[in-house]
Amino acid sequence: MARRRENGVTIRAVAERAGVSAMTVSNVINGAGRASVATVATVQAAIAELGYVPNLAARRLAKARATTVGLIYSNRRTPFLDAVLVGSLRATNANGLQLILRDGDGVTLDEAERIAQELVRSGADALLLIPPFAEQLSGSAILPALGVPFAAIATGTPLSGISTVRIDNQAAMQALTRRVIADGHRRIAYVAGPDHYSVVAARLDGFYAALQDAGLRVDDSLIVEHGAFDHASGMAAAQTLLARPDRPTAILCSSDDLAAGVIAQAGQMGLTLPHDLSVTGFDDTILASRVWPPLTVIRQPVEDMAFRATQCLIGALGKGGMRVSDEIFDHQLVQRASIAPASI
Amino acid sequence: MARRRENGVTIRAVAERAGVSAMTVSNVINGAGRASVATVATVQAAIAELGYVPNLAARRLAKARATTVGLIYSNRRTPFLDAVLVGSLRATNANGLQLILRDGDGVTLDEAERIAQELVRSGADALLLIPPFAEQLSGSAILPALGVPFAAIATGTPLSGISTVRIDNQAAMQALTRRVIADGHRRIAYVAGPDHYSVVAARLDGFYAALQDAGLRVDDSLIVEHGAFDHASGMAAAQTLLARPDRPTAILCSSDDLAAGVIAQAGQMGLTLPHDLSVTGFDDTILASRVWPPLTVIRQPVEDMAFRATQCLIGALGKGGMRVSDEIFDHQLVQRASIAPASI
Repeated sequence: MARRRENGVTIRAVAERAGVSAMTVSNVINGAGRASVATVATVQAAIAELGYVPNLAARRLAKARATTVGLIYSNRRTPFLDAVLVGSLRATNANGLQLILRDGDGVTLDEAERIAQELVRSGADALLLIPPFAEQLSGSAILPALGVPFAAIATGTPLSGISTVRIDNQAAMQALTRRVIADGHRRIAYVAGPDHYSVVAARLDGFYAALQDAGLRVDDSLIVEHGAFDHASGMAAAQTLLARPDRPTAILCSSDDLAAGVIAQAGQMGLTLPHDLSVTGFDDTILASRVWPPLTVIRQPVEDMAFRATQCLIGALGKGGMRVSDEIFDHQLVQRASIAPASI
Repeated sequence: MARRRENGVTIRAVAERAGVSAMTVSNVINGAGRASVATVATVQAAIAELGYVPNLAARRLAKARATTVGLIYSNRRTPFLDAVLVGSLRATNANGLQLILRDGDGVTLDEAERIAQELVRSGADALLLIPPFAEQLSGSAILPALGVPFAAIATGTPLSGISTVRIDNQAAMQALTRRVIADGHRRIAYVAGPDHYSVVAARLDGFYAALQDAGLRVDDSLIVEHGAFDHASGMAAAQTLLARPDRPTAILCSSDDLAAGVIAQAGQMGLTLPHDLSVTGFDDTILASRVWPPLTVIRQPVEDMAFRATQCLIGALGKGGMRVSDEIFDHQLVQRASIAPASI
């Protein structure tokens, strides 16, 4: 799938549609000069309606400064931010490029669009995305209008208009679930995380597939699908699951932070882990090896994935356009001490 | 304390001392051209012996590319790397500068010197340091020879030739210890961390001061001074401390990771926290709120400190030289659930 490069839409056509001068359109695209908020909105609407794609190479020449990769992150919701930054900086440093950041704590499409536009106006020539921003922007009308290449890491699926570097989340969770079943567990609960992250459905599919392979019945009441990816949601899910008279002997979690929350709740309820309850995480962030018991998890090679995705962006800048790709990196099942043989 | 700018030592003098041409000296300083490893070493020795300080402004003009701040980090030993990177990138982004990184996992002076030289040869115009690299390079003869401004964050003391942005570690640990004493604890152990970090002595002083203020005797056998800052060292320290017949009712730790290790070891030994043992951390990394029980800690505002230190470097580049400064940021005592009233 190649990015539209020449669709015949000119800056003049955008200017006519918006009822402004070509210079104003150019200013809005390049974040230069002055324009009212209303004018900026009108021009952006015209760009989106007509599918105008600004010429990257020309814009970079006009900027006459360092080529820049932009990253949208969330201080509160990016568990492996250090690895993303190190991997991405490795790639930008090797090519003499700059990495610029914007923090986005909202989860709305409007917020993600606003930040992406700000980054491009601040000089970003390409955007690196992480969930949930990647999923949100994949469906956005402003994506082609921004006219920069996009890449995302750690998604659950390929995304429209965005190159992806990810692991096979379904296969990974299937392997982890198989591991738990092999230890004799049959009443296995699952804490899924929020469904606007594309990894959530992919991992849940892997969980189902492993149960099915083992001839186990899926008990929907053991699957917690609401809540966030975080510690508090893990605690809340465990509180419900562990209060059942037929409580599960294992709880699989779609993130390390959820798993840490489950462990905390179990500790508060006086359970001894892993004897009374097996727990697994996902990602292998610093938390996985630091909670007690240390978590058996799937490791995503986030630093290498971020390096690769940034390289894809840099390659696209060199060629003046991006062929959207989808690369699958190997995951790893890291066995620690959080699974015990089922005793109940 | 102003940086030596004009000490009369010329590039010619360095060339004579090293027995090479001035062009070769220039090439070694700027990482340009070709020179044998032996020649590079000879020129660097001559630079260090004579105290030659290259002219920053001239060098940047000669580079004709983006001004760059270099950061030495350790993937394995930088607990708040995400905050350092975000804070530092905020400052470099705001000024159109580039941030470049080098990973250094060794703890020797040679290793730190080699990485600092590599960063400057790769184009770093200024270096941001974190412990223990800051302390190591503070005592190094190559520091003035590199001819770039240095700043460090999260040290325990001011450092020679390096601007520092830090908290008052002694006052912080004194406040935390006072908190533990106020809950009735008298047999209080302390896990100090490795003494080549300057924060270690400062925090230990705070611990002693609080005991003294409360009229409590210091029991040296309850102070663990060997080991690293990490989880394994926390576990090892707790294993010894908790095996005592008169085991402590509280263990104060000089990092969150040490505290997480103490909690893990206590859990393994069947203790119920915080009832059987109070534990405190330091830094307020992600671990602090995620282990169970969540840790009462001192919070360092690492992102803001990294932003400020990078700003200092950028200011020095603008002025062509650096006045070494020492700034103290406010710390915060964050109370969570890891301290219980002493019951023994």
